[in-house]
Amino acid sequence: MEGPSGVREALADERGLVELFATPDAAERHPDLVAGARRVHLVTEDVMGALADTVSPQGLVGVAEVRDVPLGTVLATRPRLVVVLAHARDPGNAGTILRTADAAGADAVVFPDGSVDPYNPKCVRASAGSVFHVPFVEGGSVAETVAALRSSGVRVLATTAAGETSLDDADLAGPTAWLFGNEAWGLPGDDLALADQRVRVPLYGRAESLNLATAAAVCLYASARGQREAGGCRT
Amino acid sequence: MEGPSGVREALADERGLVELFATPDAAERHPDLVAGARRVHLVTEDVMGALADTVSPQGLVGVAEVRDVPLGTVLATRPRLVVVLAHARDPGNAGTILRTADAAGADAVVFPDGSVDPYNPKCVRASAGSVFHVPFVEGGSVAETVAALRSSGVRVLATTAAGETSLDDADLAGPTAWLFGNEAWGLPGDDLALADQRVRVPLYGRAESLNLATAAAVCLYASARGQREAGGCRT
Repeated sequence: MEGPSGVREALADERGLVELFATPDAAERHPDLVAGARRVHLVTEDVMGALADTVSPQGLVGVAEVRDVPLGTVLATRPRLVVVLAHARDPGNAGTILRTADAAGADAVVFPDGSVDPYNPKCVRASAGSVFHVPFVEGGSVAETVAALRSSGVRVLATTAAGETSLDDADLAGPTAWLFGNEAWGLPGDDLALADQRVRVPLYGRAESLNLATAAAVCLYASARGQREAGGCRT
Repeated sequence: MEGPSGVREALADERGLVELFATPDAAERHPDLVAGARRVHLVTEDVMGALADTVSPQGLVGVAEVRDVPLGTVLATRPRLVVVLAHARDPGNAGTILRTADAAGADAVVFPDGSVDPYNPKCVRASAGSVFHVPFVEGGSVAETVAALRSSGVRVLATTAAGETSLDDADLAGPTAWLFGNEAWGLPGDDLALADQRVRVPLYGRAESLNLATAAAVCLYASARGQREAGGCRT
């Protein structure tokens, strides 16, 4: 974690901040962060520059523990909203989607084999702390992931511009997993065929598509709303 | 416009592609684009490198005409969905929001004074052609923009984490303008006070906020859906 807000997020997590590297100036500016870390190393600006991935970490780099969980652990919690991020390449995008999944109340995000590394520093940063909030799964094929979700009673919806169902018409009341694809080429036919339904985000203007993080936000918030409305009907 | 897809978007626009700079290789690969431009200049790789803003424009840079319109022109069309992007700083974000506004069927995007420049190459690129599809307005204060919208019968909703109304409860049936703020600090109190209502995107998990482009996508698609549902009820 780089910079004060990232370090603060790690500190708020129960697994805590394992180590904190700080320049003397930064340590003076952030006594609360220094007090919370298990081990603190004061370092020069040069060392900080060599440690940090960002150009300007504001004198703070923290080491935190965050660990992916097995898919079985997620399924045992009877999840109602899951994101499967297949073939994603841009770690910034992936982190943004992790943050959006958290905001929309998702129970887990799965990064199958061949997708971006959730531990990539750009993904961690773009998640704005959500890497600590939402359980994430790393590895497994898309086919295995979809099969496991389905056998746990989770409906799998794949997003594609050519989907047979418009998002507005999709039944989003029950446990749902969203399968999203690559930023440029989406989901291959094999993956699309695995899903229970292929859903398109409606395009009302002349844009040919949405970017991945935008499409994911629209779908996940539609699910959050659909599940809450359905919950209201059942009471 | 840089690269083949940007040049193709410009060519599809009625105002057309004014000039095309191409390396001999690129000209050979894209005869359709060369044929469509009013004037073509064959240039060396070195000249291409100096012309282009991107590292890899794939041998093509086009000059296209795209021009902002006065707010009055937009209002004369009786718009039903308008985006006001106040105090935005990141041109990539602004271009993504322009693309999302297009996809959601918005009638215009306003960039008031102090917001990002819609002609910024990063904004144009991130818009993925939507800069040609959606009329945009440049300049004017936020206060003037809001007043003009309201006097044309458009309800102005400001987005803020502390909004008194949840997006799920907002009345989105009528003509609506969404007022979005800065990526980091949102909208200042003065701007929030100008709006008819302050709306928050609900956060169901532990994320503290959404990023600007994500929040905009969720709000604009909620409007698109709300207006279509209301339209259905009236028939």
